[in-house]
Amino acid sequence: MTGRRPTIADVARQVGVSKGAVSFALNGRPGVAAETRSRILAAAAELGWQPSQRARSLSVSRAFSLGFIVARDPALLGSDPFFPAFIAGLESTLSRQGQVLVLQVVTSPDDEVAGYRRLAAESRVDGFVLSDLRHADPRIALVQELGLPAVTLNRPDIPAPFPALCLHDTPGVTEAVRHLAGLGHTRIAHVAGPDALLHGRRRRVAFLEELDRLGLPPGPVEIADFTAAGGTSATRRLLDRADPPTAIVYANDLMAIAGMTAARQAGLRIPEDLSITGYDDTELAAFVHPALTTVRADPFRWGELAADTLLALIDGRQPAETELPDAQLVLRDSTAPPGRPPTSPAPPHPRPPVKEAQS
Amino acid sequence: MTGRRPTIADVARQVGVSKGAVSFALNGRPGVAAETRSRILAAAAELGWQPSQRARSLSVSRAFSLGFIVARDPALLGSDPFFPAFIAGLESTLSRQGQVLVLQVVTSPDDEVAGYRRLAAESRVDGFVLSDLRHADPRIALVQELGLPAVTLNRPDIPAPFPALCLHDTPGVTEAVRHLAGLGHTRIAHVAGPDALLHGRRRRVAFLEELDRLGLPPGPVEIADFTAAGGTSATRRLLDRADPPTAIVYANDLMAIAGMTAARQAGLRIPEDLSITGYDDTELAAFVHPALTTVRADPFRWGELAADTLLALIDGRQPAETELPDAQLVLRDSTAPPGRPPTSPAPPHPRPPVKEAQS
Repeated sequence: MTGRRPTIADVARQVGVSKGAVSFALNGRPGVAAETRSRILAAAAELGWQPSQRARSLSVSRAFSLGFIVARDPALLGSDPFFPAFIAGLESTLSRQGQVLVLQVVTSPDDEVAGYRRLAAESRVDGFVLSDLRHADPRIALVQELGLPAVTLNRPDIPAPFPALCLHDTPGVTEAVRHLAGLGHTRIAHVAGPDALLHGRRRRVAFLEELDRLGLPPGPVEIADFTAAGGTSATRRLLDRADPPTAIVYANDLMAIAGMTAARQAGLRIPEDLSITGYDDTELAAFVHPALTTVRADPFRWGELAADTLLALIDGRQPAETELPDAQLVLRDSTAPPGRPPTSPAPPHPRPPVKEAQS
Repeated sequence: MTGRRPTIADVARQVGVSKGAVSFALNGRPGVAAETRSRILAAAAELGWQPSQRARSLSVSRAFSLGFIVARDPALLGSDPFFPAFIAGLESTLSRQGQVLVLQVVTSPDDEVAGYRRLAAESRVDGFVLSDLRHADPRIALVQELGLPAVTLNRPDIPAPFPALCLHDTPGVTEAVRHLAGLGHTRIAHVAGPDALLHGRRRRVAFLEELDRLGLPPGPVEIADFTAAGGTSATRRLLDRADPPTAIVYANDLMAIAGMTAARQAGLRIPEDLSITGYDDTELAAFVHPALTTVRADPFRWGELAADTLLALIDGRQPAETELPDAQLVLRDSTAPPGRPPTSPAPPHPRPPVKEAQS
């Protein structure tokens, strides 16, 4: 051989087979007869063949893919506004860099573990985005064992070697309660997401804690499911109470907008008779009537940053942990001072006219 | 050696290195010193090592992944309700079968071609879902050349060997126009999506064709961008005309719901003064006030069927082409006979009372 590195073509020539057969044998893929494989491996060893680092970095050693395994009902990918916006944010970074997202939805813990193991073992991804962290999340140790980098959405409650991208949602809920209390509301209710979802539980706890801090009685809480239909039923249950609330803090916009309609059907004006706040600041929030006071987070930006951070890590740079701005209250037109005092069915002063415009 | 097949552990023992190093060397991955690699390849050849066909068939020859390459602005993945619902539908099938979706968003034709080539060359996917078909779509020939199966969303306008999953959206638009004309509307406008998006153009053409069939004058068309803000401005432009429409057909729900608010702000009651129809039947459509008459398609089911069909094809079965139900009109409360005749500013009979309920 000359001084240049031996190539697959050199091995093929020496053995008298095609380059494809050599490539298959050297890449450990089936489809090459055992005897031929042995001759190819022997020739490669004899010639001192080794994979081209550059070619490899373009094809095998780097997948140019990030893995995102979601343990949820697949339908939620479409109906929870977090996922579309977050995935769009991931893709915004990935598309700029010609990379892809490997997305897997799993519905059992076993499938979840198998998913991480398979994507790692088959070198299909260069790293993972870990969302929906759980208590003492076993994925932290799993991904470490697999030897791949990762970023977590928010900080796990156990030590982890991965950068955490934090976006705190509860300050927005706290602010909503404080805003309503500041307007004079004392009977403030909450329509929550399911307790099984951490953000559902977290927002419910933040709601109750803030009432407690303000010295207000714990408002009634209806656990719903983040859907419009669930928000409607929960609202009706609250309004049917002997002591209906004068304000409702919803855990997402979808339930809040459906709740506005349910309240209107029950004969209430918003915000004069009932104040309403949402969470998400979905695109429609500013465009419904009345415009919805809600809590704004930025899952698109979260996705962009998660991909940026993970790609930096894969490139061998140690990125700083990144704090995104806390979720914050956006004041619009769906809240006002309480119009109906708790002790009297009649208002103490003439109500403002219904805002419904006349043609 | 005994009669059993030599394993990576046998090679590792013979060379005196870790199983991991052997695995890396035999899989052609970098990170193993050249000299060690040579010794490993030589030992593997000597022992007659070959990859386990079974393990390989579970890991290399089948990717257990479908590829979906989207040539759009990444932000649209989150804001166009088609994508989240369609991807959720794909995942609904894939998650049941332990498979994954490889999702790539590209913003240039070159990146698109490179994306298909790379996913195929690296055996990362077993087939492709082709959406957003274009005239004489070059992806048909490309994917054939790559030797992978595919399904198309709707039928291409050139011969293609792939099953087509058809969901026709225009019948719903046609039905909406016919419904409004049946109520007595003659000044019907359209708020369209951008012409660059096929479904935007298709719905606009269907709207104008149906007016023509009915012998009605071509209604004014405002081209907007499928966003709530765009729907608001387009609605204002229509209502500011000397001859404002009495009904507006919107190309999606987001623009329609924003349009309802804009019309209300302009002093119009819905549906008494202005009838409105949407498209998508998004979750909120039934939960706004008034509940939105709209067109229902089922992108979730489309995604499920696309994955089912493609997986059948990959398994060597030839699936029949599948027609999904046409998009169809869902009647709710946002349409009514025109309240303001074109020739007179005063209504010919007392208007129905404002539906806004009083507490």
